[in-house]
Amino acid sequence: MLNIAVVGCGYWGPNLIRNFMSSSNTNLTWACDLDSARLGNVLRPYPGVKLTTEFTDIINDASVDAVAIATPVASHFPLAKACLENGKHVLVEKPLAAKVSQGEELVKLAEKNKLVLMCDHTFCYTGAVRKIKEVIDSGALGKILYYDSVRINLGLFQHDVNVIWDLAVHDLAIVDFLLDRQPVQVSAHGISHAGNKENIAYVTLTYQNSFIAHFHVNWLSPVKIRKTIIGGSEKMLEWNDLVPGEKIKIYDSGISINDQDQEKKSNLLVSYRSGDIYSPRIDNTEALSLMIKEFIDSIVEKRNPLTDGHAALRVLKILEAAQRSIKADGANVRIE
Amino acid sequence: MLNIAVVGCGYWGPNLIRNFMSSSNTNLTWACDLDSARLGNVLRPYPGVKLTTEFTDIINDASVDAVAIATPVASHFPLAKACLENGKHVLVEKPLAAKVSQGEELVKLAEKNKLVLMCDHTFCYTGAVRKIKEVIDSGALGKILYYDSVRINLGLFQHDVNVIWDLAVHDLAIVDFLLDRQPVQVSAHGISHAGNKENIAYVTLTYQNSFIAHFHVNWLSPVKIRKTIIGGSEKMLEWNDLVPGEKIKIYDSGISINDQDQEKKSNLLVSYRSGDIYSPRIDNTEALSLMIKEFIDSIVEKRNPLTDGHAALRVLKILEAAQRSIKADGANVRIE
Amino acid sequence: MLNIAVVGCGYWGPNLIRNFMSSSNTNLTWACDLDSARLGNVLRPYPGVKLTTEFTDIINDASVDAVAIATPVASHFPLAKACLENGKHVLVEKPLAAKVSQGEELVKLAEKNKLVLMCDHTFCYTGAVRKIKEVIDSGALGKILYYDSVRINLGLFQHDVNVIWDLAVHDLAIVDFLLDRQPVQVSAHGISHAGNKENIAYVTLTYQNSFIAHFHVNWLSPVKIRKTIIGGSEKMLEWNDLVPGEKIKIYDSGISINDQDQEKKSNLLVSYRSGDIYSPRIDNTEALSLMIKEFIDSIVEKRNPLTDGHAALRVLKILEAAQRSIKADGANVRIE
Amino acid sequence: MLNIAVVGCGYWGPNLIRNFMSSSNTNLTWACDLDSARLGNVLRPYPGVKLTTEFTDIINDASVDAVAIATPVASHFPLAKACLENGKHVLVEKPLAAKVSQGEELVKLAEKNKLVLMCDHTFCYTGAVRKIKEVIDSGALGKILYYDSVRINLGLFQHDVNVIWDLAVHDLAIVDFLLDRQPVQVSAHGISHAGNKENIAYVTLTYQNSFIAHFHVNWLSPVKIRKTIIGGSEKMLEWNDLVPGEKIKIYDSGISINDQDQEKKSNLLVSYRSGDIYSPRIDNTEALSLMIKEFIDSIVEKRNPLTDGHAALRVLKILEAAQRSIKADGANVRIE
Repeated sequence: MLNIAVVGCGYWGPNLIRNFMSSSNTNLTWACDLDSARLGNVLRPYPGVKLTTEFTDIINDASVDAVAIATPVASHFPLAKACLENGKHVLVEKPLAAKVSQGEELVKLAEKNKLVLMCDHTFCYTGAVRKIKEVIDSGALGKILYYDSVRINLGLFQHDVNVIWDLAVHDLAIVDFLLDRQPVQVSAHGISHAGNKENIAYVTLTYQNSFIAHFHVNWLSPVKIRKTIIGGSEKMLEWNDLVPGEKIKIYDSGISINDQDQEKKSNLLVSYRSGDIYSPRIDNTEALSLMIKEFIDSIVEKRNPLTDGHAALRVLKILEAAQRSIKADGANVRIE
Repeated sequence: MLNIAVVGCGYWGPNLIRNFMSSSNTNLTWACDLDSARLGNVLRPYPGVKLTTEFTDIINDASVDAVAIATPVASHFPLAKACLENGKHVLVEKPLAAKVSQGEELVKLAEKNKLVLMCDHTFCYTGAVRKIKEVIDSGALGKILYYDSVRINLGLFQHDVNVIWDLAVHDLAIVDFLLDRQPVQVSAHGISHAGNKENIAYVTLTYQNSFIAHFHVNWLSPVKIRKTIIGGSEKMLEWNDLVPGEKIKIYDSGISINDQDQEKKSNLLVSYRSGDIYSPRIDNTEALSLMIKEFIDSIVEKRNPLTDGHAALRVLKILEAAQRSIKADGANVRIE
Repeated sequence: MLNIAVVGCGYWGPNLIRNFMSSSNTNLTWACDLDSARLGNVLRPYPGVKLTTEFTDIINDASVDAVAIATPVASHFPLAKACLENGKHVLVEKPLAAKVSQGEELVKLAEKNKLVLMCDHTFCYTGAVRKIKEVIDSGALGKILYYDSVRINLGLFQHDVNVIWDLAVHDLAIVDFLLDRQPVQVSAHGISHAGNKENIAYVTLTYQNSFIAHFHVNWLSPVKIRKTIIGGSEKMLEWNDLVPGEKIKIYDSGISINDQDQEKKSNLLVSYRSGDIYSPRIDNTEALSLMIKEFIDSIVEKRNPLTDGHAALRVLKILEAAQRSIKADGANVRIE
Repeated sequence: MLNIAVVGCGYWGPNLIRNFMSSSNTNLTWACDLDSARLGNVLRPYPGVKLTTEFTDIINDASVDAVAIATPVASHFPLAKACLENGKHVLVEKPLAAKVSQGEELVKLAEKNKLVLMCDHTFCYTGAVRKIKEVIDSGALGKILYYDSVRINLGLFQHDVNVIWDLAVHDLAIVDFLLDRQPVQVSAHGISHAGNKENIAYVTLTYQNSFIAHFHVNWLSPVKIRKTIIGGSEKMLEWNDLVPGEKIKIYDSGISINDQDQEKKSNLLVSYRSGDIYSPRIDNTEALSLMIKEFIDSIVEKRNPLTDGHAALRVLKILEAAQRSIKADGANVRIE
């Protein structure tokens, strides 16, 4: 039984709390938030949990095994660092930190102190993304040719981060989870219609070997779209997260390249075929409960979790590069 | 009654022929194609039309008033030039020419010889686009904030042009038709999976005054999507060309910016509202018949047509700049 | 502040409990269920509520003002009767009772004892149905010509009731709420694929004055459909409950009847027109909270609630007649 | 090479003409219509075809092998009869005739004179219906449990037939083609909002062995729906004819009946499962061309065509019974 503390009871914290409460392997001992009224409100159904507005209460409690941090991005680094320095495993909301240098320090610290550092890339634990990974790993799609995602809706304009840090971070975490390869450079175009944070952005990742990834993220769309297309040389996959019961479709469609005729450049050089469509059943287990299970299991089994600090750091590097690109009017920024 | 010749009987020519035949103001006198078998086949139902594989037959026929050119892009310029030099009005398939310098020469020649030079930007004559123009011109959307288009499907890989010249040209023509403003620069990212023509491209147009346009064009998508979103400060418009009977939806949705609070940077600075949706009825008249009517009317009325050489030249300039950008790995290329 | 007891903590009871807890005008004093483990489980977050497996505890508590009954249909009558006989207002899950005779007795008893008897026709409190009522009452649809509903999915086969009592009861409650008129007769065709309860049924209600209503209810459909079409002489309305943000569409479409030509019986006698579509914004307030507010308000204001015993009895009469029809192979059964 | 005459050049005739013209095994020799202007107009592209307003010209031409009849329903019988009496094979538009007695006479006459009598049940030749037949015949769906079709739109009110004869005839032909079994009785409810022909109808076919079929046909719906669900004990199939590229979906979903527990009547008696979805590619060959090929092949091979007079007669019997039912307010009418 692990003793857990949750820090931050705003938008996401209550979901973590609910899932830690219903896990049979954890004991939620502390909840912390700067706003004591909100804290009391969120924890009302769980009278056994100790409440505090002082993060140090948690650090000073030697019985706390692990801390889940769901606070604004800017505070991820100091809070996670303090936990790791005091022998506590850490789960951090995405993104891992506000800067790559901070992320690197956390990863090193966790390795040095042999502690679990995990980032809550929740989407990687959804039935849809796990199924997509299964399909890709099976080789059914053939060589992966492109990844295109549209993640747009009429949403709250955030104040501390722009739409890339808010929405594209999901896509970056998913692409990192699904594919082995790393992007070489990133280009991001964006625009800001209120304040100085971009609310629309187009992000292009360039990879080696004829693979490209592109994300359209937007807080100012009248329609909500959550659609990803993954093109493969053998089959193609569409993931529409808004169609319950039919989120993933695998198209037995593609192009056939006739190499013999390449010199002739005739119309028959590239032909396309359109075949059956297959929509596999998706496991509906709540992603958050699986993410928390992975966090606990990785602590118990003394191993790296699936979405560990390294994965989070790779995502953070792209975020930071995209940020530089968007400020440079879309200029390509190399990653690493 | 105008005497018309059609040059090129491949994919699009037969549609022009059918519409010229059913127009009461035109007399289709000549049809020309290098492939005499195809020519005979296409013109079989219309025994009154003279057939030729020699373009000069048309140039030399003084009774021909106007020529419609539906040949591969590379031949647009020499054919159109010959027509204009010989006193014939010209309708050219999009794009106007293969190079800006050629387009400029055609525009000058037409003006000098007082002839109509029109480009077949067919989409500008659809009920959907005409309705969108009406909506924008009415001011109902408020200030236009962004334009986003996705035009993807599993399509024939062209040999003479890439996907930008094949598909994005439609979007460029539409944006030129709908909006008064001109882009400052273009950035295009693309990838080629067969041969050396890009089959996927992402094109970003930067404008002054916080307006951005983005086009995703793709020949390698398992699903066909034709969706455009136009965000305005008052309302937003979605155009889904694949939903018969409900192609355009106008959302009474958007953001409200509270300037007073701008210093505080509170969460309430930008709030969003979601309201009614209105889908206006669209005129279903075939776009091509209206385009041809405009061509004829502009000749008869001795005026510039709606999608004249100047409009086609503006589109061509962006195409050429996008081409340079895609070869420069997405670098911004200034227009003009 | 009204003291409330909830009886039945199975599928629906917990929703009632949650809403009574969050209402500022009610004090949930008792919860009752025959299964004490389930009872304890459901009420865990609310330690102030007294628990019992004995319904008489509630009847004997003079401080209880009103009782909400969410038990299997067969027990609605004895429980509601006991409440009304002991001076307690009653909210009953749909359907009101298992037989018309029982329903009539409850209605009489409530009137005699001046108590509120309300049935939880939840759909009548949804934003969608309230908006439809507003549209119909405004006269915008013109004369109402037909009502067609499809309510199908892959669902749990119930053991105590067939698919009409489980699903069509919603449609009957909605039609009763929306329209002033009462059906003259009912015909129901059905089939049972497991056990003796019909799992597919087609119900036709015949009204006077050229109006017809039809419901398709089905527990054995691979797809979930919740679609209602209301045809009017001026406009038509479609309600698709599964499309968030666009549940209701009002079509400015219909037929025009040219009376002058009626003798000629020409093709132009009836012409149809297809116009704009309008999708009004729907209030998203949880229907159950509004239903409970109406229950409380009707008690406080000493008036009949919107979905009172009379409305529930009208629905029950149609259910009973439909039951007779389905057993008589679809024969028409008169209502009343 | 068969010599063909087409009678009737209204709505459907031109489609027949176009397909006979493009068939390499037929020679269209005659076209006939009472309206000589329409006749001339329709046949303009085909100067080799003889035109007549006198049907007897065709009967008297001994070189005519076969006649296709696309006239109003009332004339099907006399025209087809004359053809069969004069040694000509016959293709008749659906429905075969206006009365069962007429249909029976045609079937007998064709058999006596050893001539092909075929009815144009076009839908049976579509890629979608042929694929559905393939799926059913493979046994993949298990035991077929129900058939539900919705075929509604805003359509022209016909003058000579009601909506059942206009639209449900398609469903009856399809069901006859797909399934071996014959209905025992039919019940039809309908309503007429203009004139005396029903424009909305609900048709229920009762079969033996727990199978039911139901059709909703409607000329007064603001939305166009063409959706059929076929429920099987193993899998279920949905056919949405309006979704290009994904018309058929096969759901690996259904119910499992646990016979052991049948006495207990517990909630677990019937459980349901929801699995993968599979959408097979559909052949897009024009149905009409395949129908005409079948007509020609059956003549050449001296065999019964797929949708022969017997099939057409079975459909006609249901139509006539449905007609009697609708006039009897939905009373069940036995078939045969």
